[in-house]
Amino acid sequence: MLPFQTLISINKSAATPVYQQIANGFIVLIRDGLIKPGASLPGSRQMALLLQVHRKTVIAAYDELFTQDWITTIPRKGVIVAENLPEIKPRSFKATTPIPPYAGNTGFTFQSFPAMPATTIKPGKHRLVINDGFPDIRIAPMELLLREYRRLVQQPAGKRAASFTNLAGSLSLREELVTFLSATRGLNIGVKNILISRGAQMAINMAARLVLKPGAVVLVGEPNYFLADMAFQSFGAKLVRIPVDENGMDVDAIEKICKQKKPDLLYIIPHHHHPTTVTLSANRRMKLLELIRKYKFPVIEDDYDYDFHYAGGPILPLASADHGGNVIYIGSLTKSLAATIRIGYMIAPENFIREALHLRITIDIRGDSLMEEALAALFAQGDVQRHLKKSVKLYHERRDMLAALLQRELEGVISFHLPAGGMALWAQVNKQYPLPAIAARAAAKGLFMSDGSTYSRGSNNYNAFRFGFAALNPKEMEEVVQLIKNSIE
Amino acid sequence: MLPFQTLISINKSAATPVYQQIANGFIVLIRDGLIKPGASLPGSRQMALLLQVHRKTVIAAYDELFTQDWITTIPRKGVIVAENLPEIKPRSFKATTPIPPYAGNTGFTFQSFPAMPATTIKPGKHRLVINDGFPDIRIAPMELLLREYRRLVQQPAGKRAASFTNLAGSLSLREELVTFLSATRGLNIGVKNILISRGAQMAINMAARLVLKPGAVVLVGEPNYFLADMAFQSFGAKLVRIPVDENGMDVDAIEKICKQKKPDLLYIIPHHHHPTTVTLSANRRMKLLELIRKYKFPVIEDDYDYDFHYAGGPILPLASADHGGNVIYIGSLTKSLAATIRIGYMIAPENFIREALHLRITIDIRGDSLMEEALAALFAQGDVQRHLKKSVKLYHERRDMLAALLQRELEGVISFHLPAGGMALWAQVNKQYPLPAIAARAAAKGLFMSDGSTYSRGSNNYNAFRFGFAALNPKEMEEVVQLIKNSIE
Repeated sequence: MLPFQTLISINKSAATPVYQQIANGFIVLIRDGLIKPGASLPGSRQMALLLQVHRKTVIAAYDELFTQDWITTIPRKGVIVAENLPEIKPRSFKATTPIPPYAGNTGFTFQSFPAMPATTIKPGKHRLVINDGFPDIRIAPMELLLREYRRLVQQPAGKRAASFTNLAGSLSLREELVTFLSATRGLNIGVKNILISRGAQMAINMAARLVLKPGAVVLVGEPNYFLADMAFQSFGAKLVRIPVDENGMDVDAIEKICKQKKPDLLYIIPHHHHPTTVTLSANRRMKLLELIRKYKFPVIEDDYDYDFHYAGGPILPLASADHGGNVIYIGSLTKSLAATIRIGYMIAPENFIREALHLRITIDIRGDSLMEEALAALFAQGDVQRHLKKSVKLYHERRDMLAALLQRELEGVISFHLPAGGMALWAQVNKQYPLPAIAARAAAKGLFMSDGSTYSRGSNNYNAFRFGFAALNPKEMEEVVQLIKNSIE
Repeated sequence: MLPFQTLISINKSAATPVYQQIANGFIVLIRDGLIKPGASLPGSRQMALLLQVHRKTVIAAYDELFTQDWITTIPRKGVIVAENLPEIKPRSFKATTPIPPYAGNTGFTFQSFPAMPATTIKPGKHRLVINDGFPDIRIAPMELLLREYRRLVQQPAGKRAASFTNLAGSLSLREELVTFLSATRGLNIGVKNILISRGAQMAINMAARLVLKPGAVVLVGEPNYFLADMAFQSFGAKLVRIPVDENGMDVDAIEKICKQKKPDLLYIIPHHHHPTTVTLSANRRMKLLELIRKYKFPVIEDDYDYDFHYAGGPILPLASADHGGNVIYIGSLTKSLAATIRIGYMIAPENFIREALHLRITIDIRGDSLMEEALAALFAQGDVQRHLKKSVKLYHERRDMLAALLQRELEGVISFHLPAGGMALWAQVNKQYPLPAIAARAAAKGLFMSDGSTYSRGSNNYNAFRFGFAALNPKEMEEVVQLIKNSIE
């Protein structure tokens, strides 16, 4: 007889009832060939003694196995393993772990996709973090948002369920966005021009997938937001890099390319370009709009940081002008609240939104519809708008504070242009101090910061990182700058 | 002079400051060619009178335009529109809406993807809803979950940020899943075998994208979960439909295909198959595992409903046996909590998970990491496990109640097999009562229910729908059945 007491492990504090654990144990033994079809199992009394459980538990386990067709009872022979299972070849007998560990590698081959740029620093439980431009969750109206969420959970079923059924996202939130985007960005749109996505990233991903075929040419900035690059490359696109200077992307260079061959997509971040924080000038916007209307190529306008502007007002987006239906405008509410609330949007002609919905449902059926409804309520009550005013003021102060600190403490080490808006500053580190070494020393001191590798490719070593200032309060900021200073050798 | 008072609209209650609205208005007029480069603008005093705002507001607007390079000031000539803008052709003069409405159609062409099966009933603000198998959010531990979320928001920055950095999802949640999936499903895995996704759908989508090339052959059930079908088709795959009977997918039919040509993927729902609710028998599981090991084709085992079993225990998943690294196991916590909490997981060999991460970040950087951490805390405290016990008991009762109600009230109209588990019953409607007509009448009476079109394709008209019972309390269930009864003619 098999040593069932060692082969079948029982954990009385597990969520699975003991009888079921026993039944599962038998199934593994049968499947592994340790018990063969036709073999007799010990009677319930004997098994109960072996496993040190109540006899009723064993009976329940046998009932379970019977229900599932693993065993049968034969008069005068007792419980036997069913004969009608496929033939099983016994395997070598070393059954200390009855359930095999998951295979380390697949038995099949599969495709590969562009990997994240390798970084030298692994994120861990550091005490302090410099993010690359995220808001301060501590000042976000999370309390209000979660209270609203709780309220919606308790709504009558029909009303609550109604919010689940809009594939384009909560109707209330789209209605609020129509008003908000018109007032702040001059967008003249209706709810059918809006698709709510998971952050801006999913909107970029879907737009790219709709317009790109393998081999397609996408114009992006040099440098560019690396997650957009990765999305385009994952669809087999070829990136053509356009220089970015203090006035944004070089529109003349774009024109030159159009004259040769119309690109399949242009990806542009007109405000506070990622990573360099420069803004596309009014002049270049005008010129670019002409090119877009003339050559009719699709444009993703990623305006993720529009609401955060400290020097004068932001310039109206390309999407607010006559672009002949060629601009897909993408934004995010993640930046307005907290990194964890990943709610973004795509604004596009209705025919494009309709097609994007076919993709949306296959990627992630829908978002957290109650979170979207809760956010819509905060818009309707003016809470989001109030929060934006408050945080623009605060982040403006933090930007100025960081600039002053860097000038005072790290002159000659870090140089930068004061960004007109956004939540990060493009910190260019003097090349005699390699960023990976600084970041490694900082990590050892409890500060997680970028080693700059996400933006450096091949010979293009910027030795620079995005210094997110929005989520650091004055005390943290002083500490962080001091830690960097102490990490320079 | 242009009628600025009608061309520039001011909304004093909007979030955008009035001076900025005025500046934006001018930009539109310049861009639209209504004001030409070199043209003079009225002085601030005159403009203030025209627009009926304070003169200081106009000065601020002009300052803004000056900062953005739209205007310059020339001594003794006053404010003029900058000359160095690209040449603008004036457009026809009918400027009642200064900002053009978003183009109705794109100026470019793009790809199309499989659409949702067309349904005749539009979801709206119905009082009652029959969903296709979702839990009752009213009994979910949402209060605990949101309380935990709130607690995490207030954590120290470093600790909180640490949870953002795991692309595979919250480490705590993956650790909890290692224990939970071992105790309930016999999965022998580590955290590196787990990727947290947005619901099961995103995991299906990523797994499919990794293994499918255009023209690939995917074996699916007839009928099958339509959102999985759509995901496979969106990657250009060809679906080959395998019959599903009361013991699940016909494994002999799968073998027959393997003998001709190895399929590129098998998608299988072994417990409470969607839509029919049948369970793959132990026999067929054994046989299928042999095929998988022999032919080495990738398998997506979608076990979304495993935790909800009422008749005996569930059968251990394929993933718990020796499958040679060919099974990708996908599950969801959405079913354990609420439709809005879209947290699912993919279990696979480590090399597959690593590659899936390259896709994950391009689709949706990461999930709501604080929600994942909050859920991990509920697992650690045993709240999820307690909730599962409670809900299995409750849904068991609701299943039995619905079965009794249907037998009493709708015999001869709706037939069904009692499902062994899950949250829905496959309600097959007598074909003399076309489901679209019933659903239309029910909708008019305030009940939203499926018209069955999601599962009927071409000549295959099942005239059936998934009757979700989990989210209906006894009163609602009686009412819903009565409404269906009254919708039959």
